[in-house]
Amino acid sequence: MYRTHTCGELTLNNVGQEVTLSGWIQTIRNLGGMTFITLRDRYGLTQLVFDDNTTSELKNKTRSLGREFVIKIEGKVVERSSKNPKMPTGEIEIHVEKLDILNQSEIPPFTIENETDGGDELRMKYRYLDLRREPLRKNLELRHRMGQEIRKYLDSVNFMEIETPYLIKSTPEGARDFIVPSRMNPGEFYALPQSPQTFKQLLMISGFDRYFQIVKCFRDEDLRADRQPEFTQIDCEMSFVGQEDVLKTFEGLANHLFYQIKGITFNEPYPRISYDDAMKYYGTDKPDLRFDMKISEISELVKGKGFKVFDSVAYIGAINAKGCGEYSRKQLDELTAFVQKPQVGAKGLVYVKCNPDGTFKSSVDKFYSQEDLKTWAEQLNAKAGDLLLVLAGNKMDTLYALNVLRIEMGERLGLRDKDQFAPCWVIDFPLLEWDEEEQRYFAMHHPFTSPKAEDIKLFDSDPGKMRANAYDFVINGVEIGGGSIRIYEGELQRKMFNALGISKKESEEKFGFLLDAFKYGAPPHGGIAFGFDRWCSVFGGSESIRDFIAFPKNNAGRDVMIDSPSKIDETQLKELSLKIVQK
Amino acid sequence: MYRTHTCGELTLNNVGQEVTLSGWIQTIRNLGGMTFITLRDRYGLTQLVFDDNTTSELKNKTRSLGREFVIKIEGKVVERSSKNPKMPTGEIEIHVEKLDILNQSEIPPFTIENETDGGDELRMKYRYLDLRREPLRKNLELRHRMGQEIRKYLDSVNFMEIETPYLIKSTPEGARDFIVPSRMNPGEFYALPQSPQTFKQLLMISGFDRYFQIVKCFRDEDLRADRQPEFTQIDCEMSFVGQEDVLKTFEGLANHLFYQIKGITFNEPYPRISYDDAMKYYGTDKPDLRFDMKISEISELVKGKGFKVFDSVAYIGAINAKGCGEYSRKQLDELTAFVQKPQVGAKGLVYVKCNPDGTFKSSVDKFYSQEDLKTWAEQLNAKAGDLLLVLAGNKMDTLYALNVLRIEMGERLGLRDKDQFAPCWVIDFPLLEWDEEEQRYFAMHHPFTSPKAEDIKLFDSDPGKMRANAYDFVINGVEIGGGSIRIYEGELQRKMFNALGISKKESEEKFGFLLDAFKYGAPPHGGIAFGFDRWCSVFGGSESIRDFIAFPKNNAGRDVMIDSPSKIDETQLKELSLKIVQK
Repeated sequence: MYRTHTCGELTLNNVGQEVTLSGWIQTIRNLGGMTFITLRDRYGLTQLVFDDNTTSELKNKTRSLGREFVIKIEGKVVERSSKNPKMPTGEIEIHVEKLDILNQSEIPPFTIENETDGGDELRMKYRYLDLRREPLRKNLELRHRMGQEIRKYLDSVNFMEIETPYLIKSTPEGARDFIVPSRMNPGEFYALPQSPQTFKQLLMISGFDRYFQIVKCFRDEDLRADRQPEFTQIDCEMSFVGQEDVLKTFEGLANHLFYQIKGITFNEPYPRISYDDAMKYYGTDKPDLRFDMKISEISELVKGKGFKVFDSVAYIGAINAKGCGEYSRKQLDELTAFVQKPQVGAKGLVYVKCNPDGTFKSSVDKFYSQEDLKTWAEQLNAKAGDLLLVLAGNKMDTLYALNVLRIEMGERLGLRDKDQFAPCWVIDFPLLEWDEEEQRYFAMHHPFTSPKAEDIKLFDSDPGKMRANAYDFVINGVEIGGGSIRIYEGELQRKMFNALGISKKESEEKFGFLLDAFKYGAPPHGGIAFGFDRWCSVFGGSESIRDFIAFPKNNAGRDVMIDSPSKIDETQLKELSLKIVQK
Repeated sequence: MYRTHTCGELTLNNVGQEVTLSGWIQTIRNLGGMTFITLRDRYGLTQLVFDDNTTSELKNKTRSLGREFVIKIEGKVVERSSKNPKMPTGEIEIHVEKLDILNQSEIPPFTIENETDGGDELRMKYRYLDLRREPLRKNLELRHRMGQEIRKYLDSVNFMEIETPYLIKSTPEGARDFIVPSRMNPGEFYALPQSPQTFKQLLMISGFDRYFQIVKCFRDEDLRADRQPEFTQIDCEMSFVGQEDVLKTFEGLANHLFYQIKGITFNEPYPRISYDDAMKYYGTDKPDLRFDMKISEISELVKGKGFKVFDSVAYIGAINAKGCGEYSRKQLDELTAFVQKPQVGAKGLVYVKCNPDGTFKSSVDKFYSQEDLKTWAEQLNAKAGDLLLVLAGNKMDTLYALNVLRIEMGERLGLRDKDQFAPCWVIDFPLLEWDEEEQRYFAMHHPFTSPKAEDIKLFDSDPGKMRANAYDFVINGVEIGGGSIRIYEGELQRKMFNALGISKKESEEKFGFLLDAFKYGAPPHGGIAFGFDRWCSVFGGSESIRDFIAFPKNNAGRDVMIDSPSKIDETQLKELSLKIVQK
């Protein structure tokens, strides 16, 4: 037997007991005649002692030990003289009577501590050692817990988990598919799913009513920071529902997770913000509602006063950074440089300080009177001591920059506490997006997303104005999930394809078997998919999903631990009727 | 709102209530002035009535309805005059007051009934319609329930579900991998996992102690009946355990499932049968223990009596088919033809009838006296009225044939009740298998499976005799899972590679990064993997796993519903630096 207890459970209650523990050596300290070893397993740390009472044979044995050796010990639990209140087992230690070395360890390439000396690449290569560190272990424990609670909740409200296939068919829409050559069908390929979208809609047609799946999805995209070629979705679909039913159901799921995982109760429904309002007040469709600092358009107030920069642009907007009225020249220059970075893209920054004496000091005093500036301050609810930050330009780019600036100011003002959570629904998304390049509409969500009933009449007159039964779930400025009520009637689907410029022939080629299935009694249905990695990272208070994935790929899509992708045997390729083409 | 109730829940308690239901039209019957519709959803069936009190407008509307139309109705629950006790809602019906046609349906290509008129291929093509049938729905409900209970149990005993990657690396051992070309790394490939074996061992090295995952695995094999290129495993691994710990833990899981899913309690530990005994008594390493009918070798009793067939072979074995002593000539000829089928492979069948009067009648009376036959009967515990069936040949082939014959006789005698369950562990598997063709040993399980401690000494003298710490879990003659205690010490691993004729260089090429990982403190560990599809099918009382997979592939590895695999765009191939080679 390897252990009677784990390394995380012994307390004063166990004093006097003979125990057996197994684990890894975290640290060894020799103090005079005493040797202290911290033994680690998944459950915690326990201090082992070898002292004057230890046999010299056993003491000799400890000399051959090193960090990360796997040992099994037997000994007696004793009360510590100097207790460690930070450690759950800090009131006891084990007087070791027997020691077996189960396995040795080479010196690890970095220290297995909460704060490690290993760089990113090294820790990725030795991911199995990095995973020994408590922060990563806790992340995976959180992920496990969340997975369990998600399933428990969805099961309790009658959702069925149904596995959909991984070897499916390549579709020409959307992102690039990963493809899988078929040996048995030379020249033919499977594709890995970007999402189980079609299959979950088929399951609704099958009558499964309430489906979910926690499932891997795949996208062969040029990777940006914190994107993974394989990622996990909580994929859900319901029949005989409208938008409100879906939102309520999954607000139930989120509330369950908030309570079970974070101990947080929300007594009110989550705020529902229209896409238009989200863009108007936050400059983004994923607003961080942990703090207010809404964007306010001041175009009408500022135009026609001779300031060409403002007069020549379509949009001028501002935020009120409360209590920042005393910002120094240096701080303001920093902010200006910040908004001028290419990834923010503003031309410059106009500020208005609301002085304690009721006067204003701005970078555009030349053009605007104190009275003028007062109207700005009033619109932004600015009080003495506040700071207005103003950006100008074309509307969408400026809103984008204002959003980035707002987040930056929230960060600076400590308004983005990672232990505080502000969930919301963003609703009423536009149905269609105009593509300037291709001069046609695209579906903002996907071609099966239904328009609002009251907007259907706009199909012919003003399709760009149509709103969709589509919704996103956002926590702290991070999009956690999104979905829509689907089109289930043939006539409406044809109108949609029309608006998208998709011909009957094309629609049949692209969506043939799904359209076929719709002919046999499709129920009204809709659903949502959540990014599981992302949700875990937000609950874990981290910006990186990689820390919540056991074996992630790097930004080049490589697994540097197993060195994949890699070359394969020529015979393997031959069996697949494939040849590599040198570029 | 689409419904106040489902189609499975209304009873006499609801009489008088106004309800709204939505669902599919299962049947429409016109009886004189009355129309009866059976409305179906995932939860059941409810009868709708349109009678003399129905408005003519509504009655007209029913005329446009057809099978599988999706409708929403409002109406009043009334007690039925002629009740249907077979239907949970059979005591009530709904007097319909309002009817909305939510969607029409073309006439489905086969009937959506428990017994359908659709052939296999047709039902695969329209799988989404086949899934509307109750038997398939119940199968997926069972699968969902099992998935939930597996997770609940394993979580309750501290297992963590950890997702391992799908885009991994091709390994030259084992079955063929499916591979995935990498666009970003031209000429390089990922592989889809045949199992998460390496990753779960890495997780043990990471200290995760108790891991599990319900996970898709992939094998590019030439498909046999009831094999799928993608299948689902319950993959588990534990640290600081020996074989006994693993068996106990997963006997706990199986007992939980038996109780929660089938309502069955096992009060005794499952039988543990050594591989040798399983082969000896059942002719297979997956014995069906629902019935006894053990195989008995009678070589010593039958040789040297002048019957050349027996004298010339290595092995003669028999089973006792209880109560079959009255089998007719025709029945015995049938059995002879059965064992002579190529897939059974016996040369012929010898029988001995144990007559009611204590005499024996056999097909080899010429060679054996009544006394001789009596010794056979005694060894097989045969009583008057029993029938001995004897096969002869080389040992392994004859045991194989005796196993098939035993199962056939079990079937004929009704001893294989699908609602009765006989689980067992088969243990003490040989560590190595000799391959005649390659004239070398192969690992029976895999090269990381540990030998029994007491057999390690045989590495040099008699490796073929070594037994492994490997085990299979078998229910009703079906292998549900298998696993082993792994080798975790470098020295032993080298011995194993030696025995397998794998050089140091080769082992590093094949298992490099795993062997590296083993250098940093690998704990003793072992695990098991269960075939989830198979376990569901055994619990569901079916021989086919396909019925327990929502969207299976056919025997050629094709998904005929979505028509996959399929050709892809030339540009897609070009992006992947690949070219199809015509054979």
